[in-house]
Amino acid sequence: MSYLTDPARRAELHSFYRAALVDDVMPFWLKHGMDPEHDGIFTCVDRDGSLLDCDKSLWFQGRAGWMFATLFNTVEKKRDYFDAAGSCVDFLDKHGYATDGKLFFTVTREGKPLRMRRYVFSEAFASIAHAAYAKATGDEHYRELALKDFAFYMKHSFEPGVMTPKVNQETRPMIGLGPLMIGIVTAQELRANLGHFEHAGRTATEWIDRFIFEVQRLFWKPDLNVLMETVAPDGSIIEHAEGRLLNPGHAIECAWFILHEGKLRGEKSYIQLGLKILDAMWERGWDQMNGGLLYYRDLHDKPVLEYWQDMKFWWPHCEGIIATALAYELTQDPKYAAWHAAVHDWSFQHFADPKYGEWYGWLHRDGRVSQPAKGSLFKGPFHLPRALWYVSELLKLEKA
Amino acid sequence: MSYLTDPARRAELHSFYRAALVDDVMPFWLKHGMDPEHDGIFTCVDRDGSLLDCDKSLWFQGRAGWMFATLFNTVEKKRDYFDAAGSCVDFLDKHGYATDGKLFFTVTREGKPLRMRRYVFSEAFASIAHAAYAKATGDEHYRELALKDFAFYMKHSFEPGVMTPKVNQETRPMIGLGPLMIGIVTAQELRANLGHFEHAGRTATEWIDRFIFEVQRLFWKPDLNVLMETVAPDGSIIEHAEGRLLNPGHAIECAWFILHEGKLRGEKSYIQLGLKILDAMWERGWDQMNGGLLYYRDLHDKPVLEYWQDMKFWWPHCEGIIATALAYELTQDPKYAAWHAAVHDWSFQHFADPKYGEWYGWLHRDGRVSQPAKGSLFKGPFHLPRALWYVSELLKLEKA
Repeated sequence: MSYLTDPARRAELHSFYRAALVDDVMPFWLKHGMDPEHDGIFTCVDRDGSLLDCDKSLWFQGRAGWMFATLFNTVEKKRDYFDAAGSCVDFLDKHGYATDGKLFFTVTREGKPLRMRRYVFSEAFASIAHAAYAKATGDEHYRELALKDFAFYMKHSFEPGVMTPKVNQETRPMIGLGPLMIGIVTAQELRANLGHFEHAGRTATEWIDRFIFEVQRLFWKPDLNVLMETVAPDGSIIEHAEGRLLNPGHAIECAWFILHEGKLRGEKSYIQLGLKILDAMWERGWDQMNGGLLYYRDLHDKPVLEYWQDMKFWWPHCEGIIATALAYELTQDPKYAAWHAAVHDWSFQHFADPKYGEWYGWLHRDGRVSQPAKGSLFKGPFHLPRALWYVSELLKLEKA
Repeated sequence: MSYLTDPARRAELHSFYRAALVDDVMPFWLKHGMDPEHDGIFTCVDRDGSLLDCDKSLWFQGRAGWMFATLFNTVEKKRDYFDAAGSCVDFLDKHGYATDGKLFFTVTREGKPLRMRRYVFSEAFASIAHAAYAKATGDEHYRELALKDFAFYMKHSFEPGVMTPKVNQETRPMIGLGPLMIGIVTAQELRANLGHFEHAGRTATEWIDRFIFEVQRLFWKPDLNVLMETVAPDGSIIEHAEGRLLNPGHAIECAWFILHEGKLRGEKSYIQLGLKILDAMWERGWDQMNGGLLYYRDLHDKPVLEYWQDMKFWWPHCEGIIATALAYELTQDPKYAAWHAAVHDWSFQHFADPKYGEWYGWLHRDGRVSQPAKGSLFKGPFHLPRALWYVSELLKLEKA
């Protein structure tokens, strides 16, 4: 019997996730990540937490700021969480923005600019950090910053011609799933922490409806049973390697954003869509040979040319844990409880590091550790603590 | 006894490389790569040669054009080679260049622009293709194009401020090994095919001397016994992940460019430098656990955050085969014959595909195939046929 279907094991699971969150993962980052001298968080840390590189990721000032503030807001009014959130947000506000209002991708420990990139996910993460910190502090100033970041994200993501395209758009016009799905979760977080707001004449809920509509209209292909990652602007399939590239973990993450919206609003069509995406992408992503979720797949099962295509990364597994748990709560279908047990067990067997805490990030297909660092510019306190937090909150609510 | 130290096995090895080149690798690309409709070469092909993607790499129009023309010039006056070289060069000249004279990174099958990237290695590869094709055709027009590409490469690689830097150069000024080492081999190829020429008042040999001087002055660290990949403009170590990142295959490739120059000109100091680089980077790159050459290493043996850091790619092995064979020819030191046998055996056991020909490109650390495609935007007829050609020519010359 899997964890979720047995009441006693559900309670155990709640405690297990909560303990992993507050006794293992967050203490790891509070101890090893925070920069007492310049504020902000380091994320490039080795297995034992020692620093591999003191450069700072702007993604992570926002993501970690959001996570710390969210734990303060929802789990425990701990000064450590509050201070860490403030440290990330202060560093972000002081050093993150270029003169045009766009966030850098990386800066030095002291906050001097290193890299600027084209895309605007940093701005979405800054927005949710500011929103959660506005709630934690009650300071309206951060609400304004959250809405300003959101407006920047929206303009650069969806206004034609604002973001420099990677590929010539006359030759091959393309759109990605990323901006829509990050749009969904960002608006959800802003709504949760700021309450009512409007952007360009629409409420958060109206924007979410629009994003989900576009995900379904353009990226969901019922005939092929797949959520595409990249399509032409009219939703048609781009029959090139870049158009065929599927990212099951990303799609499963998108599925639970939609399930979450369906649950919150009792909107059955969203629950149905989320389940269909989860079913389809679980089938494509779950590795029948070694267990775990593969990073990339090709639409037609051709070889994928990205080098790490068959590696197991920590984050799709975190998203899988949330999506399957949420799907089970919404349906009571034992299939989802079984999938949840499969991804939970595989993850804690292979990613967890009992010796130094936290999770490894990058495994070979067969589950062996590829390299043992605990963080990078792309791995810090986000996917793993978010999953532990989300599912422990979910099980707590269901218990009550 | 290893291949190189036994006269009978040397002759076998010459025939083996020659046969692999003219009966396996080049026929694979002539059959599966050439586009009869629009000219140029496809390189994104599956294990059996079938097309994975018809987008064309500008790197490969130049690299393959050079390889085909070089085989025509040095191995056999085969019409297939001549026509294939012409097809690549014609496609390059017709569709490759943006209005500012810079080459695209990728274009469609028909030649419509897709991606432009910052750096100018495409221009170096176009230069050697034009030079080899100038020799094959005797047409001065291609000589002019080769020199024009070279001038573009030089300006964008070495004139401060011309190339947009990836990282803010005020915060962290950095220079890479790549432009210098590609400078060496490009000038060598131009000299071999065009004879005397001058660029900005210097001959090819003078440029090569200058590039090697700069490699030694800035990137070779005798105290650490390492060839760096990225340093500060004064050659000092950048103590960040990007500064500590070593690419042993790249350094071993640089080593044989320098050994080749030493051999050609009887310049002992170059032979000594090349051997020191080879020794140092072989020690850092050779995988004591599984054999083969690791992709990346950290200067201080810390974890490397690039995902494919411990994979085995085909091209470092091709460069290892050349470098060790050349080092043995220059020194008669049995250590190099043993290293050559080790990398030769490991490569032909793991990369070669007896069923469909050519080599796999991407293996797991333990030698298992990660995905079976034979080509990509970065893999086509270049490193492997160049190694087979270079070493078979080397053994032929030594035999005589």
